[in-house]
Amino acid sequence: MLDWEKIKEELTGLDEQAMEAARERQLQLLKPAGSLGLLEDMSIQMAGITGKVKNRLHKKILFLFGADNGVYAEGIAASPQELTHTLMDFYARGIQCGINVICQANGVELRLVDMGIKGEFHSPNIDDHKLMWGTDNFAKGLAMPRDTVFKAMEVGFSYARYAKENGYDILGNGEVGMGNTTTAAACIMACLGIQDPEQAVGRGAGLTDEAFVHKKEVIAKALEMHKPDASDPVDILSKVGGLDLAAMTGLYIGAAYYRLPIVVDGVISIAGALLASRFSPITSQFLFGSHVSKEPGYVLAAQALNLKPMLMLGMRLGEGSGCPVAMTVMDTAMSVMCNMNTFGEEKVDQEYRKDIKAD
Amino acid sequence: MLDWEKIKEELTGLDEQAMEAARERQLQLLKPAGSLGLLEDMSIQMAGITGKVKNRLHKKILFLFGADNGVYAEGIAASPQELTHTLMDFYARGIQCGINVICQANGVELRLVDMGIKGEFHSPNIDDHKLMWGTDNFAKGLAMPRDTVFKAMEVGFSYARYAKENGYDILGNGEVGMGNTTTAAACIMACLGIQDPEQAVGRGAGLTDEAFVHKKEVIAKALEMHKPDASDPVDILSKVGGLDLAAMTGLYIGAAYYRLPIVVDGVISIAGALLASRFSPITSQFLFGSHVSKEPGYVLAAQALNLKPMLMLGMRLGEGSGCPVAMTVMDTAMSVMCNMNTFGEEKVDQEYRKDIKAD
Repeated sequence: MLDWEKIKEELTGLDEQAMEAARERQLQLLKPAGSLGLLEDMSIQMAGITGKVKNRLHKKILFLFGADNGVYAEGIAASPQELTHTLMDFYARGIQCGINVICQANGVELRLVDMGIKGEFHSPNIDDHKLMWGTDNFAKGLAMPRDTVFKAMEVGFSYARYAKENGYDILGNGEVGMGNTTTAAACIMACLGIQDPEQAVGRGAGLTDEAFVHKKEVIAKALEMHKPDASDPVDILSKVGGLDLAAMTGLYIGAAYYRLPIVVDGVISIAGALLASRFSPITSQFLFGSHVSKEPGYVLAAQALNLKPMLMLGMRLGEGSGCPVAMTVMDTAMSVMCNMNTFGEEKVDQEYRKDIKAD
Repeated sequence: MLDWEKIKEELTGLDEQAMEAARERQLQLLKPAGSLGLLEDMSIQMAGITGKVKNRLHKKILFLFGADNGVYAEGIAASPQELTHTLMDFYARGIQCGINVICQANGVELRLVDMGIKGEFHSPNIDDHKLMWGTDNFAKGLAMPRDTVFKAMEVGFSYARYAKENGYDILGNGEVGMGNTTTAAACIMACLGIQDPEQAVGRGAGLTDEAFVHKKEVIAKALEMHKPDASDPVDILSKVGGLDLAAMTGLYIGAAYYRLPIVVDGVISIAGALLASRFSPITSQFLFGSHVSKEPGYVLAAQALNLKPMLMLGMRLGEGSGCPVAMTVMDTAMSVMCNMNTFGEEKVDQEYRKDIKAD
């Protein structure tokens, strides 16, 4: 068992000195200060993560956690529950689903992790960390024992260690699991102390109007029944979470612990990031946004995390599909920092320098 | 001289049959219909442009047009006018400015075109199409004769032909020219019939509050004096335009004529696209947005063109710097269409198919 309290104590935030050096270099580059916006900010944040001004993202990996959710029994999802298993099987068989193609197109390695999908796999391409055959129904009781939450978080954490030990420069994360926009919305509401499901619950994939109303009721009632502790992510995960979310939470904590940047995908991924921030707010400093999700819970969580997504693509596939695209945009940000010339180098007349930087 | 009327007559819109086939294929791909949002839309639009369902963007090129603007004399820009020449010279000397680095990072060829910069160049890396040493001051009279507008448009058009003849798959465009957020705002206002500069004029790069007020006055007075014809882009360009804008307008028309996709950058680039749409609305069908500019004129023009930018990066460098990043995101969209498997191929149970696509 990991000593989570020790991990929490050992987390340290961004390297301010490296960030100051990165900021100073951005001011020297041949452009009006700030004119590259988020591309500049991302390179500065990256300096704070690695301690170096110049960084490159050579090796990229995305962890896709699969899990089933007991709350599915309440009728909160449109697709058959077996689809979780089918899709994970597809990803593993090299059938070109969205995440397979998008990872390949952006040079990102895909790692598949079964955290608790109903049914067995016989594939060397899926890491078996199945802790339950789906969680229990949180409308009736705990989603999973507290002990299981810790185990799932440990799995996620171990992948950050793996990434560090194997020289990966950036992590992404995604999920597959019918019903997980329900668990994600419940966790976001619990973290932010939101009671009204109208504020935070979205339609997920393909719900009818009636089922959508029901989904909101299920979540509101469960939160009322369980009264999860907003300051304790383990309590929240145990009461209304999922095994994918718990693994993600551990991965985010691990990313901060091993000082690796990690990209946030959509509403489920951001719920994991928000839960990790309740473990320690330091974890938020290692996050990069990818695309804006339209799920209302996403918007609330992004505000709470001060996360600035860079892509407006109207994506709602899940699977972590926004992360690889964002990593490629981040490559450009790194190139700007590494390759642009500076005023000093180019002996630009000091008057020009003053004027071009007036903004 | 090009026969512009003939060109206008020969423009045809997107290939509806190819788009329908592309839409049908998107519905077959292993994902809920529509779940990849703009990535899907872009691949469908691309099919309409090329007539093929599967497309790739192997060869990419960005045309950067440089020009000085007579209205600079009115004190509407913060930087010294000589900076136009200095920057173009930097780009050409292989000094790593923003656009050089961003093009390289995204595998985009950069082509530099002098449309009317004050001062001479002696570089094989700059195409000399200098028509004036900067336009005339539109606060006092015409920016340029109507005949010069046609010549500049012809230059832009010729680069689309060049791209077609040399197998480029996608075009971008950018500019350098002190004062060109002023000409761009004036052109956008003229195209959209906006009289109030508060709605459409932004601060550009580093203006003081006082100079910003003055900039708006200069534009409003010039529009009042010249009364450009909203339906005639040549009239608008002659009265309040710039040589960079005229070349861009021609490039956009050429992109439609030669059926090549073209990416729009910021406020100046979108002003060119809007002017081209006044030549023929068909040209708008070949546009792809890149980043959202904060300049108010950009937002108005994007609405008018129904352009959906994909990146929120807070960029305001100009130079076409958003285009290469967008082209790389588009690569992912093309990969989705080319490489994802379909339901039929994978013999997915029809029930699953129905359910996964319920959304």
